[in-house]
Amino acid sequence: PSSKLPDIGSSIFTVMSSLAAEHKAINLSQGFPDFNCPEPLIQLVSKYMQAGFNQYAPMTGMPQLRHKISLKTDKMYGYCPNPETEVTVTSGATEALNAAITAVVKPGDEVVLLEPCYDSYAPVIRLCGGSPIYVPLALPNFSVDWDHVKRRISSRTRMIIINTPHNPTGAVMSKHDMDTLANLIEGTDILVLSDEVYEHMVFDGQQHYSVLQHPQLRERSFVVSSFGKTYHITGWKIGYAVAPAQLTSELRKMHQFITFSSPTPLQLAIADFMEEEKHYLELPNFYQAKRDLFAAQLKNTRFEFIPSAGTYFQLVKYDSITQEFDQDFAKRLTTETGVAAIPVSAFYHDKTDNKYLRFCFAKSEETLQAAGEKLAKV
Amino acid sequence: PSSKLPDIGSSIFTVMSSLAAEHKAINLSQGFPDFNCPEPLIQLVSKYMQAGFNQYAPMTGMPQLRHKISLKTDKMYGYCPNPETEVTVTSGATEALNAAITAVVKPGDEVVLLEPCYDSYAPVIRLCGGSPIYVPLALPNFSVDWDHVKRRISSRTRMIIINTPHNPTGAVMSKHDMDTLANLIEGTDILVLSDEVYEHMVFDGQQHYSVLQHPQLRERSFVVSSFGKTYHITGWKIGYAVAPAQLTSELRKMHQFITFSSPTPLQLAIADFMEEEKHYLELPNFYQAKRDLFAAQLKNTRFEFIPSAGTYFQLVKYDSITQEFDQDFAKRLTTETGVAAIPVSAFYHDKTDNKYLRFCFAKSEETLQAAGEKLAKV
Ligand SMILES: CSCCC(=O)C(=O)O
Ligand SMILES: CSCCC(=O)C(=O)O
Repeated sequence: PSSKLPDIGSSIFTVMSSLAAEHKAINLSQGFPDFNCPEPLIQLVSKYMQAGFNQYAPMTGMPQLRHKISLKTDKMYGYCPNPETEVTVTSGATEALNAAITAVVKPGDEVVLLEPCYDSYAPVIRLCGGSPIYVPLALPNFSVDWDHVKRRISSRTRMIIINTPHNPTGAVMSKHDMDTLANLIEGTDILVLSDEVYEHMVFDGQQHYSVLQHPQLRERSFVVSSFGKTYHITGWKIGYAVAPAQLTSELRKMHQFITFSSPTPLQLAIADFMEEEKHYLELPNFYQAKRDLFAAQLKNTRFEFIPSAGTYFQLVKYDSITQEFDQDFAKRLTTETGVAAIPVSAFYHDKTDNKYLRFCFAKSEETLQAAGEKLAKV
Repeated sequence: PSSKLPDIGSSIFTVMSSLAAEHKAINLSQGFPDFNCPEPLIQLVSKYMQAGFNQYAPMTGMPQLRHKISLKTDKMYGYCPNPETEVTVTSGATEALNAAITAVVKPGDEVVLLEPCYDSYAPVIRLCGGSPIYVPLALPNFSVDWDHVKRRISSRTRMIIINTPHNPTGAVMSKHDMDTLANLIEGTDILVLSDEVYEHMVFDGQQHYSVLQHPQLRERSFVVSSFGKTYHITGWKIGYAVAPAQLTSELRKMHQFITFSSPTPLQLAIADFMEEEKHYLELPNFYQAKRDLFAAQLKNTRFEFIPSAGTYFQLVKYDSITQEFDQDFAKRLTTETGVAAIPVSAFYHDKTDNKYLRFCFAKSEETLQAAGEKLAKV
């Protein structure tokens, strides 16, 4: 019998990170920091492991962590989800996205995606028998063309997936975007899945606008976030989903049979460390400095710089250098120049090639400088 | 719109563990040790976290861990899977089971389950649009009635799920069982999913017989195991699947979009600790002593003891005490007697009640003795 996902090969993250390792290139492709997490987090894991917290967490997540997530949400977005019924800890945001989609998408359903978008959304929709409906973000700013979204909504539309701050473009959605979305789906039973894993990385004094701030939207939304990005622990794979009780109940049925629960000592360590509000309150400045350092490096290159309002990603346009397909150029840049990036066409179902590369600037100053020097030679 | 799993409520593990906590009962329900994991494992996690191994693992798992899994499989079962193409690390066995089922089961497919069985198999099959086909294990020994299995096989059968050593009954399959299964599916394209998470807990000098030892079976099987059971770290949620390259390739497509990867420092610590072959080679004796201690306690009670050949579970029959439905009796035993167990009807789709309870004996001597004293009063 044939594959259920015949067109899925190695992900672009695996391809580029492997190629970078093989050619000892500076890896600015897959999104992860090249510096370590805060030392106290590591001490806390040890403490909890020593104290015997090595057995199953409750299916919904450790109560301490769900409680802290609620408090933080209240503080940041003025809305306090009920930790018992509206917050679920998952094995990374990837599992939360999978569980949210799988919980509600049935055969024949349509789900609107704004492209470019993260590569897990569409396959999970298809595995549920649903159809992704692709709407491109509008160039040059990657803003949402809500009229276009409206034209693609039908009686079969089950969900719209949004992502702000946006991977790979660094664009952020405004309150006005959220109001428009809310108006668009008013009176329908269309749900929203909002991927907000970069919530603590918005720059230039702007604030992240969360779906959780929007009363009409949050009552029909799954909001997904992750500790990996916020605490420099992408490899710990602890994420979460916030949703109204009824949606949470459906999401948990999936989570129960996907991973059942997530690592107990890691959850406890993160819960304690969340007391350190300073960490995430300072994150915008921390990453803005890196963004600006990398931007300064790019000034010395032939790449065209595209402003990044959030995330730890920086887009560049390269069409003044070559007309090559971005996936070929990204590979050549890795093997010949020694800097790995993500070709943005990998985030379009039809590999739309607008000649953009995505660089991850979650790197030490030395790494960013070294990358800049290499890129200047292109 | 209605739920995709309308009949799923809280799992029996959540229900009984919560009830036990609420009533301060001795919790012999959900399967997990009440003693800590080996200290060196904890040190290794610290070491790797300190050294900065806190970012994404490769999607397929850390190479070191996949390598060790292959070596161990070779040593135990005389078969060395290729770590590059046949071994995948997952976020617990639960994810491996989900990924294996989701990888191959399509709408209309049938999957044969032997009841009683673990509660995640059937919902995942149904979410894929497949139908679970239930065959009861034969009383009194919970042996497989292969003739019955044969009668339930049809042109729509996509997979048979087996589990040895068997949760909740403690039964183990023999080479003869495996030969019979192999003959049964010869000439068909039926696959096997073998849940072997208790592989290192087989007692009385018997050996676990793995599907990986059987050349005809392993070429069409997913074999799932877990480190949680073997290293007393059920809360770390690191498991794996071994399967031929083509099946592994399909399983990995699912894993990529379920969790993408599993915690890096936990994987590295386990890989190093696997050098300690002594740990898992001594596990049968370690758990046999606990089984025997608990059996001695049961002698002083009115519960009928059912021999356990493997796993860390002990079945008892209680029909000489009461004719109550096992789920009611289990709750009463928790609240009134102070010992929580799993009612075996929870492992049957139609709640077949043969008046059995399952106790987990992965507990300290004191816990087992205290439980025995309470149970003697029933
Ligand atoms: C799970 S690997 C992908 C990491 C990531 O979010 C990205 O690079 O876009
Ligand atoms: C994931 S909680 C269930 C643990 C277990 O395997 C059991 O108790 O049967």
